[in-house]
Amino acid sequence: MAGGVGARFWPYSRNSRPKQFLDFLGTGRSLLQMTYDRTAKLVPKENILIVTNKAYRDMVLEQLPMVSARQVLLEPARRNTAPCIAYAAARVYAANKNGVMFVVPSDHLITKEAEFIEAAIQGMDFVANNDAILTLGITPSRPETGYGYIQAGQEVENGIRKVKTFTEKPNAELAKVFMDSGEFYWNSGMFFWSVKTIRAAFRKFLPNTFAKFEMGLAFMGTDSEQAFIDEYFPSCQKISIDYGIMEHVTNAHVLFGDFGWSDLGTWGSLYDTLDKDDNSNAKPKGKSLCYDCHKNIIVVPEGKIAVVQGLEDCIVVDTDNALLICKKSDEQRIRQFVNDVSLLEKGDEFI
Amino acid sequence: MAGGVGARFWPYSRNSRPKQFLDFLGTGRSLLQMTYDRTAKLVPKENILIVTNKAYRDMVLEQLPMVSARQVLLEPARRNTAPCIAYAAARVYAANKNGVMFVVPSDHLITKEAEFIEAAIQGMDFVANNDAILTLGITPSRPETGYGYIQAGQEVENGIRKVKTFTEKPNAELAKVFMDSGEFYWNSGMFFWSVKTIRAAFRKFLPNTFAKFEMGLAFMGTDSEQAFIDEYFPSCQKISIDYGIMEHVTNAHVLFGDFGWSDLGTWGSLYDTLDKDDNSNAKPKGKSLCYDCHKNIIVVPEGKIAVVQGLEDCIVVDTDNALLICKKSDEQRIRQFVNDVSLLEKGDEFI
Repeated sequence: MAGGVGARFWPYSRNSRPKQFLDFLGTGRSLLQMTYDRTAKLVPKENILIVTNKAYRDMVLEQLPMVSARQVLLEPARRNTAPCIAYAAARVYAANKNGVMFVVPSDHLITKEAEFIEAAIQGMDFVANNDAILTLGITPSRPETGYGYIQAGQEVENGIRKVKTFTEKPNAELAKVFMDSGEFYWNSGMFFWSVKTIRAAFRKFLPNTFAKFEMGLAFMGTDSEQAFIDEYFPSCQKISIDYGIMEHVTNAHVLFGDFGWSDLGTWGSLYDTLDKDDNSNAKPKGKSLCYDCHKNIIVVPEGKIAVVQGLEDCIVVDTDNALLICKKSDEQRIRQFVNDVSLLEKGDEFI
Repeated sequence: MAGGVGARFWPYSRNSRPKQFLDFLGTGRSLLQMTYDRTAKLVPKENILIVTNKAYRDMVLEQLPMVSARQVLLEPARRNTAPCIAYAAARVYAANKNGVMFVVPSDHLITKEAEFIEAAIQGMDFVANNDAILTLGITPSRPETGYGYIQAGQEVENGIRKVKTFTEKPNAELAKVFMDSGEFYWNSGMFFWSVKTIRAAFRKFLPNTFAKFEMGLAFMGTDSEQAFIDEYFPSCQKISIDYGIMEHVTNAHVLFGDFGWSDLGTWGSLYDTLDKDDNSNAKPKGKSLCYDCHKNIIVVPEGKIAVVQGLEDCIVVDTDNALLICKKSDEQRIRQFVNDVSLLEKGDEFI
């Protein structure tokens, strides 16, 4: 899944270049490229499908030159994750009625790759042999209030438990209780299922969406596929897979582990994953000299130097035509700032 | 005098483009241009001499296209103000032994031009008729610790008093006493004298410098002038006119007034002169959206937008290849920051 916009990382991410296409950590590979690299260790490369917005087609093919255009599924409109997954499931089902899917966002970070791959193999094996929807849960390392939680019940096999409930972002007190209980995992937004299982779930809980792609099955993989999608995709209900499917199914399971995972949802969560200097400043990109600075994240373009003095707990992100300075504690307001910029500036050159 | 570097305004000013060449206030005219415009109301345009560093020759002629190359005196090395003034005095004396000089820095701000011009006419008249060194003193409007002060004695004529002492930058307590006494004026670094008077002072207090330019008199205004200057100027003692001459002479006078003057010595003093928004933020250049911000000065290049949240009493200056964020209270450290940048980066692209 590579169709998101990532407004919370403005001005580093833009509508024209969202988060998944950026080399956030200065490793030389974008989040999308790292996701592809990981996935290519799990399945035959030609079986990797990238679902993205039409606007990002060329950027996907440029960043992943080993991928053929046929592997890139193009959404003509933003309809959240449920229609995206229904489309991919139709494509897989048309090719192989016994297919198994592993669905991953392309803008997350995984630092413990070996553990991740081991779990993914177990997960794919589990859903190939069970009529189960399986989510990847992350063992919490802190009482994070920014993530959704999965409450797990009885263990089915080693590391896999039945899901009791999906819980939205808790407050700080509740997050502490969740973490201490040992019953809760972070919801990573990664899923395993057989196409048969997910089709049954769509048929039951999102029947209109199911019907559209059922009608489209005959076009999948043909020259008419895009025309069909352009016609029918935009009228799909805009809903996430969590709200549309996961919260209703009775066969949800969670495979849990510690994969050094972060959804990099905000500058603050990126800050948490980065190396820091002696004063806890993270400088993932560009050169900066810091004086009397603590706990900042500072991102500067190549070829530029920042001199920063007297700043605490701030986000400083500089790009060619936009500069953001914001307290980390106020980062949820960045989306509003971007709205204000777009109202003020009319055009979209800054957003 | 237009040879200074202005490191305190880094990164907006650079070695390659110092403060006097910048349009600091967004008026469309650089400080040098504004200084020329003012001076041209006082004296025949062809009598205006601009002393600058050789490196800035083309920039001066570009910004002042009405000025002939003959009016631009080129220093091959930085030697502070005394040699600069000795050179200009030699050029004036060679042209007119009864000449009168009004010496002005090119990087100051004057907002009350009518009062300034009236005072300048009085000053030039005074030194044409008296063997006096006359400085322009500014009636203090606040107990500023960043300026030098002139203690004045007995009044000689309306607005002109004998100088008792020159005093370096006082501490806050002393500055308060100075201001309340009514005896002290800010030293603006602007001077009036006849060439005869200033030559006598150089002969007595900086005899080596005097001797060099005495030897050079025959070259002034000829094709050999630059060759002479290139040979002899670099060996002049590096010293300011204040230390080298003013503090020793017995015929120093001060002409005082309120000219809306600022030496724009730092971002903080520039901030004081600028219009502010409702939250006391000054934004002299570029677009910026401020949230929860107070008492900042924010300078952004054309075509760029800054979004700034939660900043108080800070300097934010963004340029194409350097960004500065610094507490106003720490602005005296900017010079050190620039040194650090030049050590870190070797080349001079950032300084």
